[in-house]
Amino acid sequence: MKSKPIPFEFIKSLEKLLGKDWVLTKESDLLAYSYDSSSLIKIPSAVAFPEKKEEVIEILKLAQKYKVPIISRGAGTATTGSPLAHKGGLVLCFSRMNRILELNEEERIVIVEPGVLNGDLKKFLKKYGFFYPPDPASFAYSTIGGNVATGAGGPKCFKYGTTKDYVLALEVVLPGGKVLKTAPYTLKAAVFYNITPLFVGSEGTLGVFTEIVLKIIPLPEKRLLFLSAHKKEEKPLEIISQLLKNKVTPASAEFVDKTTFLALLNSKQKDLLKNFANFKALLFLELDGEESAVDKEKSKVEKFYNDLGIFYIKAEEEEEIERLWDIRRAISPALKILGEKKIADDVVVPRRFMKELLFRIRKIEEETGLNICCFGHAGDGNFHVNILFNPEKEKIALKVREEIIKEVLSLEGTISGEHGIGYTKKSFVSWELSPFQIEIMKKLKKVFDPDGILNPHIKIPD
Amino acid sequence: MKSKPIPFEFIKSLEKLLGKDWVLTKESDLLAYSYDSSSLIKIPSAVAFPEKKEEVIEILKLAQKYKVPIISRGAGTATTGSPLAHKGGLVLCFSRMNRILELNEEERIVIVEPGVLNGDLKKFLKKYGFFYPPDPASFAYSTIGGNVATGAGGPKCFKYGTTKDYVLALEVVLPGGKVLKTAPYTLKAAVFYNITPLFVGSEGTLGVFTEIVLKIIPLPEKRLLFLSAHKKEEKPLEIISQLLKNKVTPASAEFVDKTTFLALLNSKQKDLLKNFANFKALLFLELDGEESAVDKEKSKVEKFYNDLGIFYIKAEEEEEIERLWDIRRAISPALKILGEKKIADDVVVPRRFMKELLFRIRKIEEETGLNICCFGHAGDGNFHVNILFNPEKEKIALKVREEIIKEVLSLEGTISGEHGIGYTKKSFVSWELSPFQIEIMKKLKKVFDPDGILNPHIKIPD
Repeated sequence: MKSKPIPFEFIKSLEKLLGKDWVLTKESDLLAYSYDSSSLIKIPSAVAFPEKKEEVIEILKLAQKYKVPIISRGAGTATTGSPLAHKGGLVLCFSRMNRILELNEEERIVIVEPGVLNGDLKKFLKKYGFFYPPDPASFAYSTIGGNVATGAGGPKCFKYGTTKDYVLALEVVLPGGKVLKTAPYTLKAAVFYNITPLFVGSEGTLGVFTEIVLKIIPLPEKRLLFLSAHKKEEKPLEIISQLLKNKVTPASAEFVDKTTFLALLNSKQKDLLKNFANFKALLFLELDGEESAVDKEKSKVEKFYNDLGIFYIKAEEEEEIERLWDIRRAISPALKILGEKKIADDVVVPRRFMKELLFRIRKIEEETGLNICCFGHAGDGNFHVNILFNPEKEKIALKVREEIIKEVLSLEGTISGEHGIGYTKKSFVSWELSPFQIEIMKKLKKVFDPDGILNPHIKIPD
Repeated sequence: MKSKPIPFEFIKSLEKLLGKDWVLTKESDLLAYSYDSSSLIKIPSAVAFPEKKEEVIEILKLAQKYKVPIISRGAGTATTGSPLAHKGGLVLCFSRMNRILELNEEERIVIVEPGVLNGDLKKFLKKYGFFYPPDPASFAYSTIGGNVATGAGGPKCFKYGTTKDYVLALEVVLPGGKVLKTAPYTLKAAVFYNITPLFVGSEGTLGVFTEIVLKIIPLPEKRLLFLSAHKKEEKPLEIISQLLKNKVTPASAEFVDKTTFLALLNSKQKDLLKNFANFKALLFLELDGEESAVDKEKSKVEKFYNDLGIFYIKAEEEEEIERLWDIRRAISPALKILGEKKIADDVVVPRRFMKELLFRIRKIEEETGLNICCFGHAGDGNFHVNILFNPEKEKIALKVREEIIKEVLSLEGTISGEHGIGYTKKSFVSWELSPFQIEIMKKLKKVFDPDGILNPHIKIPD
């Protein structure tokens, strides 16, 4: 899989612009930028590391001139191949554009460059008593730019919303080096079309971010975690629906299904789970907010759990809470014992159909004998469906994936809630979207990228 | 100002489709649809009242065929001329499409037709303990469709966000009768470009809404209102900044400036304000949420006010709270004593520049002798600037407006935060947006409305 060459003059101009150290072209150097968290490997033609906006502008001018594909890359934690150069091109890496430019406590906004890590931003804001809620599993090492590009979610997103609910404005560079401010940095605006959210989740296909203005909120005073265990696998899903109807709004509601739980019982976390061995499913329910309000919600949940005879433990100290969340975080590595290979999707259905989807997936599991895990953000209707299998079963696994996607769509769902499409799910887009919707996507892309040089091989079906 | 004729066959087809009762063509009937809350009068060629989506589709097919402009109209409360037929065309009125189609408590969404009144929806949801926060001054009689078209805000929008934060998905009909679902009705989605927010605030220029899916939240348990009075006009603005830094998040923070306050002291509300006569400005500060959390915020605010020696009253009962809000609601009629005519804008600046903007506007007021009111949503940086004058001063008033807009833009602000552009502010758009941003607007419109038949004479400069 050799990288595709790009014009020599383009590389020369890049080197002149950034200095030779910040342009990679050697095959051995390029390898490090040839993968993400999907199983794909695609070696780019070159990798560039701009340090400031002005350099990004020049790069986009050059890219337009030489018609070189530009693939923006955060930390490479995407699960879909979206930051890879599928048919050659320049990978733009933002590790040097990682400054927090401004915190304005009065405005409750923070302005950052795209390469800032989500986890670093969280730590920085905490010092000032502020909070940026979106928390994808990768938050410790994924970038805000990447989070915006995928529209990242996370466990906290039921109560607090996903990335798109926090992006106030973007500074975007388009092919040819044109700079577009998507909105004024004010809390309201009604002059320009409301285009900021169009870029959130656009997976690098519409523009290159150079400045990101985020809304922030006060850090919740108190956190509290319930971890409950259930003998009927679908019980946690019923509980969530019931609590929501009763006006309880958890910060997080994370579901661990039977198959995933089995893997956890055989993982490094098994000691923590020794009292849970007779159960089939888990529910992580985090409450947060003002202290007395949390206490009141706590009583509501306790009463509800006690009335139903539900087995649970409760953590009120930060350290204890995080220790329990480690169980949730251990899922990905734990799944390896269920199969050497994995197909991971993140489907969403209206919440009321989650139980039905779970039943249908279990039926497929029984029929095929593959292990299918269904954990995730129960509050949002968002299941992380992981199909585990050994290599000889790959063909069946791929068929199972198709069956599951069909079930999701028949339940009015969507094939992705957080991860996006990238390369790996491109062939399924036309299963969900109408030809007219796909046509609209193509036309929208043309508005911002008429020559199709921004991440041209992902998201939109050919 | 006679209405411009449209093809006879078009009208005949409309009458066949809807029945003659639901198509108006007589000049006397059309008059009622020739105005909004701006001072413009534009008589449409015809008015149609569809009752269901299928009829809207047929109308949009006919409009495309006969190239007839389509102007969607809610309740006509726009302040900018956006629902008027500026050069003839068909006004589409949604008063018959006013059904609440579905409330799903488990999903926390409500699905409505565009003609549902915001106030009716609020009342309906309250019965179930739910809340739809956006509350433009017109909320009792403005429609959700209109609110979405302008991206309406309101006093509650600092804490809760504006309309765009509540629209989960839209069903939109485009010219030619094509139906576009902007998103699945799930809480998260990452497949299609995130186009729903593009329609919010698009002022009827991109598509006709037939179904609106809104997120809703639990009704806050408790409300509490502080009304404080201040001898220094800018004091309320300082207080807001201070409270926000101290992590207090009011539901509403409404500022009443010196000139507006003077008008109120001479209005029907003067009895309510008799203890306030020695002051110059007011601040309405509403807290809401879980009861004990509100109590705690209350203590914080009380301590803060007492330490500063601020004069305030406090209302904790619904009825008393509403009685005080009546003062705020009385502003518009009260202003009439300051001048026969009015130019009303709703500018926004970053919150930290509100004080500076107020000073600059006062200077203009002194220099010109016109009355300039500056009340509004202090939490959002959003001033409702009203210039009051008698007819002989119109020329000066128009010049003053231009000066104020220049000041707003020089303070990194925007000329509209809630009302939009419509017709009355179209000439100022190029003061705020770059030629490139305007070009992007035109191209985006072309994606959805290639022949330019949807509200073709507003928002985007020619």
